[in-house]
Amino acid sequence: MKILITGGAGFLGQCLAHALQENELKQIVTELVLADIAPLRDATLLADARVRSVTGDLQRLLADGVINGVDGVFHLAAAVSGECEADLDVGLHANLDSTRALLDACRTLKQPPRVVFSSSLAVYGGDMPEVIADNTLPMPQNSYGTQKFVCEQLIADYTRRGHLDGRSVRLPTVTVRPGKPNKAASGFMSGIIREPLAGVDAICPVDPQTGVWITSPRFAVAGLIAAFETPLQQWGGRTALNLPGLSVRIADMLAALERRAGARVAARVRVEQDETISRIVGGWPWRFDTARARVLGLSGPASIDDLVAEYIADYPNAVIHAA
Amino acid sequence: MKILITGGAGFLGQCLAHALQENELKQIVTELVLADIAPLRDATLLADARVRSVTGDLQRLLADGVINGVDGVFHLAAAVSGECEADLDVGLHANLDSTRALLDACRTLKQPPRVVFSSSLAVYGGDMPEVIADNTLPMPQNSYGTQKFVCEQLIADYTRRGHLDGRSVRLPTVTVRPGKPNKAASGFMSGIIREPLAGVDAICPVDPQTGVWITSPRFAVAGLIAAFETPLQQWGGRTALNLPGLSVRIADMLAALERRAGARVAARVRVEQDETISRIVGGWPWRFDTARARVLGLSGPASIDDLVAEYIADYPNAVIHAA
Repeated sequence: MKILITGGAGFLGQCLAHALQENELKQIVTELVLADIAPLRDATLLADARVRSVTGDLQRLLADGVINGVDGVFHLAAAVSGECEADLDVGLHANLDSTRALLDACRTLKQPPRVVFSSSLAVYGGDMPEVIADNTLPMPQNSYGTQKFVCEQLIADYTRRGHLDGRSVRLPTVTVRPGKPNKAASGFMSGIIREPLAGVDAICPVDPQTGVWITSPRFAVAGLIAAFETPLQQWGGRTALNLPGLSVRIADMLAALERRAGARVAARVRVEQDETISRIVGGWPWRFDTARARVLGLSGPASIDDLVAEYIADYPNAVIHAA
Repeated sequence: MKILITGGAGFLGQCLAHALQENELKQIVTELVLADIAPLRDATLLADARVRSVTGDLQRLLADGVINGVDGVFHLAAAVSGECEADLDVGLHANLDSTRALLDACRTLKQPPRVVFSSSLAVYGGDMPEVIADNTLPMPQNSYGTQKFVCEQLIADYTRRGHLDGRSVRLPTVTVRPGKPNKAASGFMSGIIREPLAGVDAICPVDPQTGVWITSPRFAVAGLIAAFETPLQQWGGRTALNLPGLSVRIADMLAALERRAGARVAARVRVEQDETISRIVGGWPWRFDTARARVLGLSGPASIDDLVAEYIADYPNAVIHAA
């Protein structure tokens, strides 16, 4: 089976590629194509003979035939929320037009491929119920969420028409991410844990009482793989699936950091509110009833302490303070 | 005020143009541009010095500057449901890409124009509640409905960003339409009234017990104009508004025809089920709670008899049988 991961050199794409190398799918994955605008630098992945890395704008890569012979796609490539809010055209190109190009490329394949699309909690906003249910009407309040929701609709329609077997999964904010901050409005949720653990100051740009809906990289990847592996009749419906996560306040995250690394490390986080980020993140829901996902056996981290522990376990070299 | 109607030579576009000539807006409409892929043939409209008719693909007309100086847009141009289901690319071009082009053209204007978008009950489908409410999650089950729903989202986002003041209105099936049948899956709902009244046989392609959600041309136009005129704070939210209509079974329509024109006229309708049309139309909801529209003072025809009477009053020359 040949698998294409768009955004394959991104953080989640690399996590997913590693998981595909290691988990039960490894028996059937004969070729793993990682397509990304940025070059892949992960040595383990590059050393795997099954892995091929291709670099460039997705629409160009598709025009060059990157889809040929593909049996399954994980479509993770996207401009992030902050970029999309700053420049509408950037988001429309990277998120909407590139997804259209991918779906149309799938139509050229003899066998409709399975396509897992990573959507986002950012589809929700506006006048929402206290708790988001699987059938809550999304009313996106940012361009990123709009574009994700639009792609969900197109994927559902292409699936209905038999061009592909699409499954859209709405991810909670995936945190703690390693490396440098990105332009996602949610990026600080990783920063406020990652930077202090590395002995670096961090800024929290929202009121610490802000509630957020998060999951860890491992659980996000498990959700994407489950979306790929679940038989269609069990998956049910063509509406996007809300992945389980944790409902926490930013203050809870800081408290977990303090429990794990001590008060002096936690004190490295300074609150300095940013209006745009507060508006975007504060407009996202943070309480979900993920009944449909739970029936499929999906879950999220048991606690924020587990989430911090996962980061420390997975990126020990990035951590100098973990009591 | 300069108004652009896309689909302006179509049935609803012409009804709307006539209404703008006649209703309270006539004082402020200084120029009315009717853009359509087909030429305008309506003598009354062509004779009005304020009316300009432009013919061609909407994307080309936009590239040629049809948006210049426009204060308000009624965006009605669309490929209909039957066409969209028969050819995905036709629908994506006419409905999605043309709307994108229109919205991007609006971004070039100094003053964000008001844009009324005619969406459709076809956004709904799949696993629905008995009665559709304003916050029911659309799960389109046909490409036309998908494309309409996608455009609603883009319009909401462009509105949020301040590029336009968009209002999306989901129309019930508009019937009785005069003239020739079109490729809409719902077209027969006009045909089964129009053809017998003209002494012509008609085919009903669905089970007469099928429930449908309909309104008349006059009420549809009134809804579009109200969407244009309602102050933003009263309009509320950026979600599409479900226009009021009538919940009837096809058999009720045939009974109304018989009440108005007699049993021999009604007997001109022969049931001959078509699988595709039955699937599309049978998948649409037909019971709505249009609370938000009612608060705005919008309504639909009081009865199916009124709807038949409106057609006979408005198109007397097309009617030879109306006892």
